[in-house]
Parts: sequence; C-alpha cells; structure tokens
Amino acid sequence: MKDFEFYNPVRIVFGKKQLEKISDLIPLKKRIMLLYGGGSIKKNGVYEGIMKALEDCDIIEFKGIEPNPSYETCMKAVDLIKKENVEFLLAAGGGSVIDATKFIAAAALYDDGDPWDILAKGSKIKASLPLADILTLPATGTEMNKNSVISRQSTNEKLAFSSPHSFPQFSVLLPDAAATLPTEQVANGVVDAFVHVIEQYLTYPVNAPLQDRIAEAILTTLIEEGPKAYADPSDYDSMANLMWSATMALNGIIKAGVPEDWSVHDIGHELTALHNIDHARTLAIVLPGVWRVLREEKKEKLLQYGERIWGITQGTEEERVDRAIDVTVKFFESLGIKTKFSDYGIPAETIDRIVERFKKRGCLFGMGDRKLVTLPVVRKILEDRL
Amino acid sequence: MKDFEFYNPVRIVFGKKQLEKISDLIPLKKRIMLLYGGGSIKKNGVYEGIMKALEDCDIIEFKGIEPNPSYETCMKAVDLIKKENVEFLLAAGGGSVIDATKFIAAAALYDDGDPWDILAKGSKIKASLPLADILTLPATGTEMNKNSVISRQSTNEKLAFSSPHSFPQFSVLLPDAAATLPTEQVANGVVDAFVHVIEQYLTYPVNAPLQDRIAEAILTTLIEEGPKAYADPSDYDSMANLMWSATMALNGIIKAGVPEDWSVHDIGHELTALHNIDHARTLAIVLPGVWRVLREEKKEKLLQYGERIWGITQGTEEERVDRAIDVTVKFFESLGIKTKFSDYGIPAETIDRIVERFKKRGCLFGMGDRKLVTLPVVRKILEDRL
Repeated sequence: MKDFEFYNPVRIVFGKKQLEKISDLIPLKKRIMLLYGGGSIKKNGVYEGIMKALEDCDIIEFKGIEPNPSYETCMKAVDLIKKENVEFLLAAGGGSVIDATKFIAAAALYDDGDPWDILAKGSKIKASLPLADILTLPATGTEMNKNSVISRQSTNEKLAFSSPHSFPQFSVLLPDAAATLPTEQVANGVVDAFVHVIEQYLTYPVNAPLQDRIAEAILTTLIEEGPKAYADPSDYDSMANLMWSATMALNGIIKAGVPEDWSVHDIGHELTALHNIDHARTLAIVLPGVWRVLREEKKEKLLQYGERIWGITQGTEEERVDRAIDVTVKFFESLGIKTKFSDYGIPAETIDRIVERFKKRGCLFGMGDRKLVTLPVVRKILEDRL
Repeated sequence: MKDFEFYNPVRIVFGKKQLEKISDLIPLKKRIMLLYGGGSIKKNGVYEGIMKALEDCDIIEFKGIEPNPSYETCMKAVDLIKKENVEFLLAAGGGSVIDATKFIAAAALYDDGDPWDILAKGSKIKASLPLADILTLPATGTEMNKNSVISRQSTNEKLAFSSPHSFPQFSVLLPDAAATLPTEQVANGVVDAFVHVIEQYLTYPVNAPLQDRIAEAILTTLIEEGPKAYADPSDYDSMANLMWSATMALNGIIKAGVPEDWSVHDIGHELTALHNIDHARTLAIVLPGVWRVLREEKKEKLLQYGERIWGITQGTEEERVDRAIDVTVKFFESLGIKTKFSDYGIPAETIDRIVERFKKRGCLFGMGDRKLVTLPVVRKILEDRL
C-alpha cells in the first residue's frame, strides 16, 4: 500500500423526505443563493421542498446552469453574489450545477486577478463562500468531494480544479428526485461512476487488497443495480443503490493508498470540449482504447478485473484481457451508450486536433506518476476508437 | 436501503515516516498533553518521533493509561489538564489510549456535574478539548470515529459514549509501529475488527448491496491479511492492510443505510467488566452464541456470509449455517483465540450475574430497533458458550 492522507468532511444526508432537514443544516438564515439548471427541480418537487424548508430565509435564485457548466455562466452568478451580498450557496440538481457552484463560491472571493486562473493556471484558492447541495442525479460524485470541472465556451476548454475550500458543507441525496430522469441521463450516471472507479482501480497492483475489493464492490453494484435504475428510474431501491455507489466512487475512499490513472477523463474532456458529447459518453469512447493500448502495463489488473467482476477465468491471458474489454463495451452498449467515433459522427481529424491541443499544454499523463500517456499514445488510443 | 446520515471529518495520515507531519497538523504550538499507556511507544520509536516533531511545543505528559481505560485514571488526567491549562490532547498508542483521551477531552470541559454521567446517564457533551492521535495498534477503529468505551473499576462497569465533539482532528496511522506488538495483541485486533464488521453486516437484508459488499471486502481482507500480520507483525504490507481494514470497519461507512446489531459487544463488555478478559476475546466467546440463538432471525445473512466469505454453497440451509459458524470459530482459534467460558475459567454463575446486571439496567437490545436480545435470550446465548 502507498502512504496516503484521507480527509472528507462532507455531511451526507441520504434518503426520503430529507429536504425538511436543510433549514437545520444551513448555518445561517439569510442571503442564500439557490443555484440550479434548466428547471427540472421545478418538475420533481425539489424546488418546492427547498422553498418550503427555507421559507424563513432570503433566497436569491440563479438558474440556467448548463450541462458542462461554463465559466461565462458562472461569472454571471459571481456578479449577482457581489451585488446581493450572498453568504451561502445552495446548489440543487446534478453534478454540473454542483461543480459550477464550487467554482462560483471560489471565484466570488478570488482577488488575485481573473478567476479563470484557478482552472487554467492552477492558482490556489484561499477562501470560498460556504456551499451545500441537493443532489437529484447519481453520476459525478462531486457531492462528496472537493473537485470541479468547468468549460470555457469562448476557447473550447474544459478544465478541472480541486481545493479543500470546495467541499460542500452537506449534501442531501434524494434518490426519489431521480425518478423522473430521462433514461439516457441514468445511463450516463452509471457509466460515469463506473469509469471513476476504473481510473482509481485499473492501474497496477500495490498490495492494497481492501481498496481493490471496495472498488470491485462498487463496480459489481453498478453492473447489478445500474441497468435496473436505467430500465425504471422510479424503482427507488435501485436508484438509491446507484446513487450511493456513484458517491462512493469518488469520495476518496477507493483512491487512498493506491495509484490513480485519469487518462480516460483527460482525453474524454477533449471530446466534450470539441464536440459537446456528454461526459459519460466520452469516457465510454476512450476507455476501451486506453485498455487496448496499455494492455501490457495494466495486464495484472485487467486479469483481476475480468475474473472478479465478470467471472472470466478461462483462456490465455491475452484472450482473457480481450474478453474483459469486450464485455465492458457490451455493458456500456446495454445502457444505450455507444463507444466509437463513428457512432457520434466524430471525424478522424479530431485526433490531430486533440493531439495538437495536448501538445500545446505540454501534457503527459496516465497511471499517476508513470506518465505513460504521451502524445503518440494518445493518438494510438484514439485511432483505436474510429 | 434505509435513510442515513454520514459525517466523518477525521483526517487520516497513513504510512511510513508520517510522524514528521504532526507539527503541521496540530493547530497550535503550546500546552499539548501527550497521553500514552504502559510505555510501548518508548520502545517502538514513536515517543522519540513525537518529541522530535514537537520540539517547539510545551508538552505535558500523562502516562499509564491501562487497557480497558478506567474512569479513575481518566479523572487524574483531567486534574492535570486543569492545573496545567492544557489546550490540545495528543494520544499515542492503541484504542484504549485514544478512547481514554476522548473521555478526558470531554470531561475536562464538562460542567454539569460528575463526568461519569456522560457514560452512565448519556449526558450530552457540549464541548471538548481538541484531540488527535498516533495509532500504533490496529484494532478498535476509534481513530476514525466519535465513540469511546470507559470502565469504572469501583463498580465493575464498562460503558460507551459517542459525541460529534469526540472525533479526533487527525489520526496518524503507523503500521510500522505495530511491528513490535506481541502477537496476541495482533490477534485481538483482527478479531475486534472482524466483529465490528459483523455487528453492522450480519443482521437482516435491506437491499443495500454496496454496503454488504464493502463489509465483505473488509472481512475477506481480515481473513487474508490478519493471519499474516499475526505470524509476523513486522510484515509491513500485511500490517498496513490489517490496520486500514480495522479503521474502515468502524468509521461509519459500512453502517450507512443498514441495520446494526451490537449485541455481541453489549454482552462481551460484561465479561470484561466481571473477569477482565481482553475485549476481542469476549467478542469471540459471545459471537457464536448470538448466531446460534438468533439463527432464524439472521438466517439470510448467515447464508450470504457463508457463501461469499467462506464459499459455503453445499448442503441444506441449516447445514450451511452450522458450517458458517464453525468455520468462523476455527478462524478465531487459528489466531490463538478461544471461544468458550471453560477456556478462560469463567464459572457458570457468571451467566446469572450478567443477566442480573442487564435486568438492573432494563436492557433489551440486538439488531437495531428489533430489540431481540431479551434477558432469556442473553441467558441462552451465554449457556451456549459454557
């Protein structure tokens, strides 16, 4: 096992009728900004529940946060926060709204220049407005971590930041609010959580059997419960199991003491930035390519994954690795998620564009410190996905 | 899945050479009380490491905290804290030292009368001195929770309390400090952690597959790594895996959304109080009795446990339950831990005494709200263990 630090102070409040608790959870009663997206919270009862619970508070609303939330939209919220002297941010919705709120909370108190530097230059955040969230969509895990991903429309960039100031004070997880989700969004959530686990698990062995088994526990639960929630988002138990799995996938527990990869995400973000493809779908496109190209480097874990998750024990090592990759692709496809450039109409020239963009940023990444994903490797990974 | 809240703000710092970090972790530099036990930290280098890291601080030492830490000893520390105006408590050692420190930190600021009421009457703690710990022994999980168990010598009582004020600010987990442990203490740690998981897992199904699998992940890791650490406590990797398993066993993750039991602990505490038997050994005595007497109520989970942990798939349900119990007893015995009254010279009259003590306290407990463990059930459980 590698040495590690683990710290996660997010209070999770999970289940039915939990909205009533938020007035006790919010430490102050005035100047609260409620941030949300396109208005789904007005259809699933969450907006009404929040307003009822917070009827004694001053609520300033900020709506219209888009999927892949943009810097441009976030900065409009920052302006309103300054104008209205907002003291607490409450996000309601899915991962995009929460990610945006984390950035907005930091940008509102950022006084070292352009807040875009937090993303582009990794500038340190010294403070952040306090924030919390009501989660209505299982997927990104942002409700229980300190990370955020923001896009800039004007430059087609999609970048991440992470700060201990960005932990939500609490997150209320509402599986029943997810009952009215379009099934494509449920499918996205399953694949997103699945690949989050993979990025922290499918690297190389470091004798960390507990971490491996917890990662496998999440993968198996996603494979078992995800299709049920996809088939019927109003099946409370399956949605609850999916939602908790997605949170556990990215709250720091499974990465404690093990190497991480994140090359699938790094490459996937480029496909979203250039072609506006749903985040989870970009992961489903890239993952099989990463596994095929790095099959030697990841072989031990690919064999373990094949055996423990899919029961693949027969055949040569090469055959077993192939089967593990194939069955994963089939799992994504069973959720209606395609895995090839051609499925999304992405032209082959996109490969040159992505390689060029990584080149500009001087990127080398993949499998933690090993930095295996060089520019020629990115090219090979993407060529596998045409 | 049941509704739940999860909150755990303890910062974990895990691995080699982590003692150097404590001067950055402690928020202030003066009036720090270092609490420890019989002096093992002077043999394993931990005392020296702490003193070196904190050479700029005023350290007040309090040593001699015993296993099953006593109220009487704790109150001596409280007196010293008041006299010396101590501002921060740093525990170094195993679970007993940390549990004592949690109680001392609360008692030092308790002004509603006798601090024993915190344990005996469940009196609420309103404040606590800040505390942290250096863990040198994998077992109780107290390093990452808000619980503590304290004994009173004068009345032979052993009682627990839990308070959000009692979370350590940080816990430094040092697998290599456990290298010099007597093997019996390693065995105790494995069994203690094992039964912690069992109390939160082996109840009844509530469709919480992720929680089940994470519990199973910890059990399997304890079964795999525990015997290696027991055979050679200086085997760093095995000890590290055991230590992280013991922490994960009782940090709130596996109980989120599922029923709990704790009847093994409630009964086991009585054996420690009356006969001064090591905590873990009392659990090994009581557990098979609880399973035999509540085999119908726990049948579904006993079958799942037998199959997933021990591969028991053949035979009738009754045979499989019997085998699951037998193989667990054999596992404890393989670590040198006996499971019968007669093995410890406990007389049969102890059963009457325990039943009488529970009767006085008006106890009914076991499997959460179900309160299955009535006085006749306690008697049956203990009669099974003669």
